[in-house]
Amino acid sequence: MDLLSIDSLSDDQIATILDRGQHWFDQLRDGRSSDALKGKLVFNVFYENSTRTAMSFATAAHRLGASPQFLSVEHSSVKKGETLEDTARTLNAMRPDLIVIRHEENGAPERVAAIMRCPVINAGDGTNEHPTQALLDAATIRSRFGRIEGLTVAICGDIRHSRVARSNAKLLPRLGATVRLAGPPELMPNGHARLSIEEAVQGADVVMMLRIQRERLERDLEDRPGEYLQRYGLTRERLTLAKPNAAVMHPGPMNRGVEIEGQIADSAERSLIELQVEYGVAVRMACLELALRD
Amino acid sequence: MDLLSIDSLSDDQIATILDRGQHWFDQLRDGRSSDALKGKLVFNVFYENSTRTAMSFATAAHRLGASPQFLSVEHSSVKKGETLEDTARTLNAMRPDLIVIRHEENGAPERVAAIMRCPVINAGDGTNEHPTQALLDAATIRSRFGRIEGLTVAICGDIRHSRVARSNAKLLPRLGATVRLAGPPELMPNGHARLSIEEAVQGADVVMMLRIQRERLERDLEDRPGEYLQRYGLTRERLTLAKPNAAVMHPGPMNRGVEIEGQIADSAERSLIELQVEYGVAVRMACLELALRD
Amino acid sequence: MDLLSIDSLSDDQIATILDRGQHWFDQLRDGRSSDALKGKLVFNVFYENSTRTAMSFATAAHRLGASPQFLSVEHSSVKKGETLEDTARTLNAMRPDLIVIRHEENGAPERVAAIMRCPVINAGDGTNEHPTQALLDAATIRSRFGRIEGLTVAICGDIRHSRVARSNAKLLPRLGATVRLAGPPELMPNGHARLSIEEAVQGADVVMMLRIQRERLERDLEDRPGEYLQRYGLTRERLTLAKPNAAVMHPGPMNRGVEIEGQIADSAERSLIELQVEYGVAVRMACLELALRD
Repeated sequence: MDLLSIDSLSDDQIATILDRGQHWFDQLRDGRSSDALKGKLVFNVFYENSTRTAMSFATAAHRLGASPQFLSVEHSSVKKGETLEDTARTLNAMRPDLIVIRHEENGAPERVAAIMRCPVINAGDGTNEHPTQALLDAATIRSRFGRIEGLTVAICGDIRHSRVARSNAKLLPRLGATVRLAGPPELMPNGHARLSIEEAVQGADVVMMLRIQRERLERDLEDRPGEYLQRYGLTRERLTLAKPNAAVMHPGPMNRGVEIEGQIADSAERSLIELQVEYGVAVRMACLELALRD
Repeated sequence: MDLLSIDSLSDDQIATILDRGQHWFDQLRDGRSSDALKGKLVFNVFYENSTRTAMSFATAAHRLGASPQFLSVEHSSVKKGETLEDTARTLNAMRPDLIVIRHEENGAPERVAAIMRCPVINAGDGTNEHPTQALLDAATIRSRFGRIEGLTVAICGDIRHSRVARSNAKLLPRLGATVRLAGPPELMPNGHARLSIEEAVQGADVVMMLRIQRERLERDLEDRPGEYLQRYGLTRERLTLAKPNAAVMHPGPMNRGVEIEGQIADSAERSLIELQVEYGVAVRMACLELALRD
Repeated sequence: MDLLSIDSLSDDQIATILDRGQHWFDQLRDGRSSDALKGKLVFNVFYENSTRTAMSFATAAHRLGASPQFLSVEHSSVKKGETLEDTARTLNAMRPDLIVIRHEENGAPERVAAIMRCPVINAGDGTNEHPTQALLDAATIRSRFGRIEGLTVAICGDIRHSRVARSNAKLLPRLGATVRLAGPPELMPNGHARLSIEEAVQGADVVMMLRIQRERLERDLEDRPGEYLQRYGLTRERLTLAKPNAAVMHPGPMNRGVEIEGQIADSAERSLIELQVEYGVAVRMACLELALRD
């Protein structure tokens, strides 16, 4: 099966991914890995740069005994004018067992999946979706609170351009959480009700801060250095509005002092940021496994 | 043994590669791979960018249980002024089991092979040769027609700069086919008899279109957009000149609407383009196997 | 254990690396490799380009059955403003078994190691240290002379910026050799006694030439083409000052005709340059093994 968006997943599949993700998390913590996908060849096709996502998928493949093969498409045929569909036909004819794809255009993974014989996993497409990020976020939240149902999750920042926000805003409500979205008015989706950051954080169990791109700070917000943090970022002061045991998340890479105060990111009590990365590998193992099984 | 050019291969070796290529093609179609080259370390050393050839060789190595190690030399020591020979000596001293090399200079693989202790496979050198491409083309043609002997193959486009054309023009006649070369006069080798595209395609069993580089269109041909297709490209009209069951090939990446009309490329009946890619992996498995055995 | 600098190694650990390095050298020469590190995932994190060191570590990992995963950080999150510490926390949370890191800043591997749960090997940091290079140099010298004790090693060139010189100047004296450093006055460390190249080479058993960066030639030395070789490089004439059976080394990549005359580099009798590369793989196998064991 393909894993292209949160909507493409059934409730059962989501439950399986979270449960198996927990299983692999526990195994990895115990220093155990697996040969379950031995001999499987996974093409990791990245049209956008990425440290964490590319390394996370590669690590997940390795830990299951599969062979990841990285393809950075920045300097490749694409530059020579080949269409996405022709690249997909070429990759398909090489008969990999699975393709992980990141692309700067919304819907590109779906176009590729329509051509591929093998399963396709969306590792982020434009401003559309980043489903494995939402799944790892859910697994991280569940590990912290023991449940997702009934929690309030504030997602704050550049909502308009965030595929992380979009995927989480679809997934977490299906698991029973309430999601609040807040950000600078210029960076909210059109027609979306406007919450201030303070309103969003008020009484929240989880505050998930999004990365703001430096280009947008200047171009869209005419932000002066340090201003964003005061107006929209997560300061210790703002965090006091959340529940006393509230947790803080960030998909990374972080701009310390911009969208999040450094001391919050480093708080062992508050921050789940490293745990997210750790669940990233485990949940992607579950995704590879499920995609190749069904 | 090295695999540097078509001339370096005996008839027996060519037959072995085609037969083993078919064997691996059938195995891969059945979802089977091999551990025949387990523990073998293959350096894929690319001085030129490549999606398909680099991925094809990496896939071939994986499917035989070998470990491919990619080295892109664009940002490496070479830029620091090291000679090709010194790079070869360095790689040789690391004792890989095999080297696959692509280089923009004619004859570079031969210079490297003169130094390496291990076998060297030429994955394309300048405008000289691309022997594994010709071998996979031959395997593809044979799978379509059941034979190569007696067929007429028209190779059309930028003949002058095409290592694909050169290797095919050497290999296919050895296997009993007649090869006709045609292209814009400015892009034919010096002193070569000039066939029009129509003359070349007339009665052909196979029409193999070559990629034309966009830079050449403007610089060498003063081509206006769309003009190349009408003058030298494979249109449906021109294709009617070929045999009724003629097949169409292209080494990729394609410029749709330039050297080939999109509908021809997509014709399930006519186009062998994806089959070429699939045979690419299988035939390169046969090449790796042979190079490491003999 | 981490391998961050020569000082961080005990005499016992150095002896183990040299002995196991020799063991792996002999094994590789016999065409044997190992599965000792099967299932181990090694992140090779390079903030600076490198052909030989990256390939050497990848080869060492492969030959021990481990899986190397390359991460080039030039086009990654770092460019997005993530701190080194945050990148380290991210990599740490992915739970690799070992990290090899090269970085342009002095001390970066130490900062990373302070965060990582797994062992860290320094593959070169700024102008500080390159401990595995010094270890492979020592192994190479020992294989040539049967000992290191009592030998005189002249290291010549851009001493000021050379991490190779720094690591060797720490390691070789611990093994009983005398090290002499010489180079253009502009490229000597401040306050260092100045030897002429001739004085350094006089009676030496080993002459190790360092790479001079072309930028420095013009900027720091106002060198005219060919001038460096005559003033500071290793010419055949200068080499006659060394012991009759003196050996020549170079960490590569070489600038032939700049810091070293080509004929010396190619001398089968004199040059250990390729042997250094070969010991590089073997000694790094020993380093991986030791780091993962202790």
